[in-house]
Amino acid sequence: MIIILKDGAKQEQIQSLVQNITNRGLTVHESIGSQSHILGVIGDTSRVDTQTIINLECVSDVKRVSEPYKAVNRKFHPEDTIVDISGRKVGEGYFNMIAGPCSVESEEQIIEVAKRVKASGASMLRGGAYKPRTSPYAFQGLKQEGIKLLLAAKKETGLPIVTELTNIMNLKYFDEVDVIQVGARNMQNFDMLYELGHSNKPILLKRGLSSTIEEWLMSAEYIMSGGNQNVILCERGIRTYETATRNTFDISAVPILKRLSHLPIIVDPSHATGKTWLVEPLVRAAIGAGADGAMIEVHNNPSCALCDGAQSITPDTFDTIMKDVKSRVKFEGKILV
Amino acid sequence: MIIILKDGAKQEQIQSLVQNITNRGLTVHESIGSQSHILGVIGDTSRVDTQTIINLECVSDVKRVSEPYKAVNRKFHPEDTIVDISGRKVGEGYFNMIAGPCSVESEEQIIEVAKRVKASGASMLRGGAYKPRTSPYAFQGLKQEGIKLLLAAKKETGLPIVTELTNIMNLKYFDEVDVIQVGARNMQNFDMLYELGHSNKPILLKRGLSSTIEEWLMSAEYIMSGGNQNVILCERGIRTYETATRNTFDISAVPILKRLSHLPIIVDPSHATGKTWLVEPLVRAAIGAGADGAMIEVHNNPSCALCDGAQSITPDTFDTIMKDVKSRVKFEGKILV
Amino acid sequence: MIIILKDGAKQEQIQSLVQNITNRGLTVHESIGSQSHILGVIGDTSRVDTQTIINLECVSDVKRVSEPYKAVNRKFHPEDTIVDISGRKVGEGYFNMIAGPCSVESEEQIIEVAKRVKASGASMLRGGAYKPRTSPYAFQGLKQEGIKLLLAAKKETGLPIVTELTNIMNLKYFDEVDVIQVGARNMQNFDMLYELGHSNKPILLKRGLSSTIEEWLMSAEYIMSGGNQNVILCERGIRTYETATRNTFDISAVPILKRLSHLPIIVDPSHATGKTWLVEPLVRAAIGAGADGAMIEVHNNPSCALCDGAQSITPDTFDTIMKDVKSRVKFEGKILV
Amino acid sequence: MIIILKDGAKQEQIQSLVQNITNRGLTVHESIGSQSHILGVIGDTSRVDTQTIINLECVSDVKRVSEPYKAVNRKFHPEDTIVDISGRKVGEGYFNMIAGPCSVESEEQIIEVAKRVKASGASMLRGGAYKPRTSPYAFQGLKQEGIKLLLAAKKETGLPIVTELTNIMNLKYFDEVDVIQVGARNMQNFDMLYELGHSNKPILLKRGLSSTIEEWLMSAEYIMSGGNQNVILCERGIRTYETATRNTFDISAVPILKRLSHLPIIVDPSHATGKTWLVEPLVRAAIGAGADGAMIEVHNNPSCALCDGAQSITPDTFDTIMKDVKSRVKFEGKILV
Repeated sequence: MIIILKDGAKQEQIQSLVQNITNRGLTVHESIGSQSHILGVIGDTSRVDTQTIINLECVSDVKRVSEPYKAVNRKFHPEDTIVDISGRKVGEGYFNMIAGPCSVESEEQIIEVAKRVKASGASMLRGGAYKPRTSPYAFQGLKQEGIKLLLAAKKETGLPIVTELTNIMNLKYFDEVDVIQVGARNMQNFDMLYELGHSNKPILLKRGLSSTIEEWLMSAEYIMSGGNQNVILCERGIRTYETATRNTFDISAVPILKRLSHLPIIVDPSHATGKTWLVEPLVRAAIGAGADGAMIEVHNNPSCALCDGAQSITPDTFDTIMKDVKSRVKFEGKILV
Repeated sequence: MIIILKDGAKQEQIQSLVQNITNRGLTVHESIGSQSHILGVIGDTSRVDTQTIINLECVSDVKRVSEPYKAVNRKFHPEDTIVDISGRKVGEGYFNMIAGPCSVESEEQIIEVAKRVKASGASMLRGGAYKPRTSPYAFQGLKQEGIKLLLAAKKETGLPIVTELTNIMNLKYFDEVDVIQVGARNMQNFDMLYELGHSNKPILLKRGLSSTIEEWLMSAEYIMSGGNQNVILCERGIRTYETATRNTFDISAVPILKRLSHLPIIVDPSHATGKTWLVEPLVRAAIGAGADGAMIEVHNNPSCALCDGAQSITPDTFDTIMKDVKSRVKFEGKILV
Repeated sequence: MIIILKDGAKQEQIQSLVQNITNRGLTVHESIGSQSHILGVIGDTSRVDTQTIINLECVSDVKRVSEPYKAVNRKFHPEDTIVDISGRKVGEGYFNMIAGPCSVESEEQIIEVAKRVKASGASMLRGGAYKPRTSPYAFQGLKQEGIKLLLAAKKETGLPIVTELTNIMNLKYFDEVDVIQVGARNMQNFDMLYELGHSNKPILLKRGLSSTIEEWLMSAEYIMSGGNQNVILCERGIRTYETATRNTFDISAVPILKRLSHLPIIVDPSHATGKTWLVEPLVRAAIGAGADGAMIEVHNNPSCALCDGAQSITPDTFDTIMKDVKSRVKFEGKILV
Repeated sequence: MIIILKDGAKQEQIQSLVQNITNRGLTVHESIGSQSHILGVIGDTSRVDTQTIINLECVSDVKRVSEPYKAVNRKFHPEDTIVDISGRKVGEGYFNMIAGPCSVESEEQIIEVAKRVKASGASMLRGGAYKPRTSPYAFQGLKQEGIKLLLAAKKETGLPIVTELTNIMNLKYFDEVDVIQVGARNMQNFDMLYELGHSNKPILLKRGLSSTIEEWLMSAEYIMSGGNQNVILCERGIRTYETATRNTFDISAVPILKRLSHLPIIVDPSHATGKTWLVEPLVRAAIGAGADGAMIEVHNNPSCALCDGAQSITPDTFDTIMKDVKSRVKFEGKILV
């Protein structure tokens, strides 16, 4: 960590700052130039809050030299992490297609979708039981009953299931769930991350709506620092000024995370863009960029849907996308799980 | 709600859509122009999800005519809400200065700060007991012990206390807390909002880091729809590309919320900008814009601080700011609480 | 265009508004519901400014039903535009790799780079002669002399050249330039767009740093409405809060533009991210997403560079990338130009 | 400037980098810690491009210690700049209200508005003659004729006029214009800034739509480095994800610029928000934050306007705002010009 002092920093302020840093078991190297006065802090600076130091009267700026995360850092863990989901491997060298409806609506719906996406080649089933909704008046999901229906679909098809946890108090209902999803709105629900770090469940950690990649990795660090090594990252778009898409799909996050971390990284183009016709080209882009999988919304419930046969991606469209995905994953020299 | 159909929308798709909307007890008016084909939906559309309709094959766009919130809407509640905090009034016509340290660190610290800010004219004491921290290795607050120390300061000074709840499971420790703060990261923790809506505590609802004003009001709606009418909104900056400040303080939110809602709106310039020297000019700006109060970080703990006497805003600086605030609140014809 | 009136809109205001719209040769359909009062405007609304109408006292909101652009709109021009650059085709079905240094520095440099990238398979040479620089003290390019050096490299290698115009007064020096680049900062330099619309040069129109896709297409419309049909769009990243990359590369822009417009769309991952190691994965992503080409910075000037052999992408790295690009373009069933 | 080297940086790369920096007349101090290897660069680093250095293989990060701007920097010019506009003073201690229509439409309109705003207390008249418009089909202003009408209004009322230059080739028509406005879209039109720097006209430099404060100051530096000391900065909102306002009015820019620079800073709430009812509260906020003036759109042209008597801010509303502004400027101890 480098602390750049202000021009007129007073000697007693600097000494007080140096003393305090030294008291924390760190070493300080002072460097005085004609135009700059710098303190280099050596040791484990991960517990030092840069914001506090920036606010000091004598300080102009603070700059970390090393990343604030350790367990998720590729520097200290060079080999790729492969997460095992009931036999399915997620990570470098593999490609997983996770498919299913936004919300679980009924047993018929979820089992029908599960069978169809399995037949097309999906490796896991997704479906929302607890639904975070912007409006208190909107459908909030079937909750505990939704989990049961997902488990019924798992029993029927053998597909591992992925579903979102929105409240740590419901964790007890997730015993048989294969992958617990932490949604964008809970990426910085640190109490939840802490608890999940002390479970042994694979966690799918979605990127927060306006999180930096570093903040996202720090949230993964919360989970890993608790002992749980099974973390999968999921890019789902960030909030920008552009209104042509619901969010801006940050494709660069894929190669950046591959470089900074050893964790698997998948993408969710459905939520990223809010437009079904963008799912296919963005899955192709993600495969090219080196992603380890994609999660896609597939619906098949004409009786409840607002408009017959027109609901987002149908099992038929998913089947077409899967054929294309198969040839691309092969081209990349990866294994389609 | 207005649904704009695509040029080549098929008749059976439109009929299916109309049928589904009608089934929900709503009425549809069809309007066919030479260049546009539009469905006007009449009735209570707050349960209709616009995103689902946009995804329909026959639909080009959907536009709400009325706001999706009711309880927080000034249209249905024209008079200003005044929240009563143990006798202190928060809302239009009043101005509250809430002051205190970012984190409660010790009994001496919090009582000393409480006495000082009370002497200067603060109407409430703030202090963090449970601290949401980006890094799992950073100090997470004194937790339950921090609440006890805040209550000791309250007993000593009579100042009502404001402190943040980060996990609904800790609500039991907040019985004597006067105002429960929902932080930016929990603005869309809907399970927490639901629970707080069923409590009778005044809630200080901070704006999410990248929330729109409408999403923020929808979160307030979660609380109010549960029966709790005591909601105070707090602008604390939004995330943008600008790096000169930690966040961009959205001053326009103040007059916009005054127009859209009847709820009190205060500002937090300390967190918005991350720079202590911006607190004073932004408090002045907020008073001019019509805010009902400000929440300010005041520290006074040289022994623990990293650099003697240089920690963010000191009680002395706060005293200077309060003198200015007093004359400005008087100029506006408001009552300083 | 749909105009949503406010609840209490006065009859004389509405009549005045209807009269004014009718005076412009448009037709108005009024639709009064129990909860909404709407005016549907029929006719050529492209000259009507929505912002002016939104500001009217009686108006709640305005929504365009049709896009504000015509010449660039795929609706009115369904077949893909293929731009011919001295025999090289740019557009759907083809893939162009445009390579060269950020700035032209000397004859040796530009000719050496040109030869190397041509040997690897680039179809065009890029290089900056006029450089827009944030600081007035930074190197502003070789200007007119830079154009001459580019033409020398063109003569030597036969590669068409692409270079940026920053001031319409310099257009006279661009007679032998094959493609005129309009940089991000000039995307809304409407006087320049107007002049280029009346030239017959192919134009490479970069996306503005914070332009929406619609604004970008409107800038292309400026050029096409002047008569110049040879416009190539270039995605180069948008400004967001994320600091891991210089800009956020908006990969979704590629399939969106393919749907909304018939114009070719290429990508510039070098400027989008500011990180050379991201160029290769993002070119792969862009090919997957359906882009028609990529523009890449390649340097080869150890004597001037700050650190020997370490400057951004070298001709050797470019050669490696090109080998990969060749197999991918073939996989997509496209022709590498 | 501090250069942080990568962990495994090779000795020959470092030596080459040091050599190159030394060749530019700068001095390098090397500092090797157990966890960090740092080069401190001493001397005039304003010509060194940080981006080039960041891209070097051996470099982890680069951090400027001093600001890249000089002429606009308060450090080297502590006293406030007061720009004199035909006798009206703009800068610290004064407050200017600049008012007028978005576009000049006719002689009657501009003279009527000029008389009205003068009577209410405006110190200058604004009006658009050359209008940058997103659509090529929208009204582009009366151009040269618009300037003539502004000059007629100036003659009639004595108010200095402010109008936008969109193309440096039109500068010859601005001889009698008192203040040349550089619009948001031209803030980084460096050729234009260069030319204006070599003129002696007062320049009103609007902030770019997505410019950082540092980039904005660098654009002011372009003008000042040419010799023109008469620069006024104008905050007009930045582009963010929030859609409740057209742009997000960055009130913090006012006190930040007062600290970083000696130049006057005014605000434009009309363009910042796109909502007339926000103009009044934001002017009050800006006065509180320390702004030196405000520029406000005032229309009075019922015959051309789309809806009688409802056009944005009327002279009557402006008169009401001015009464409030007068008492506030007095409260601040400033002189209303």
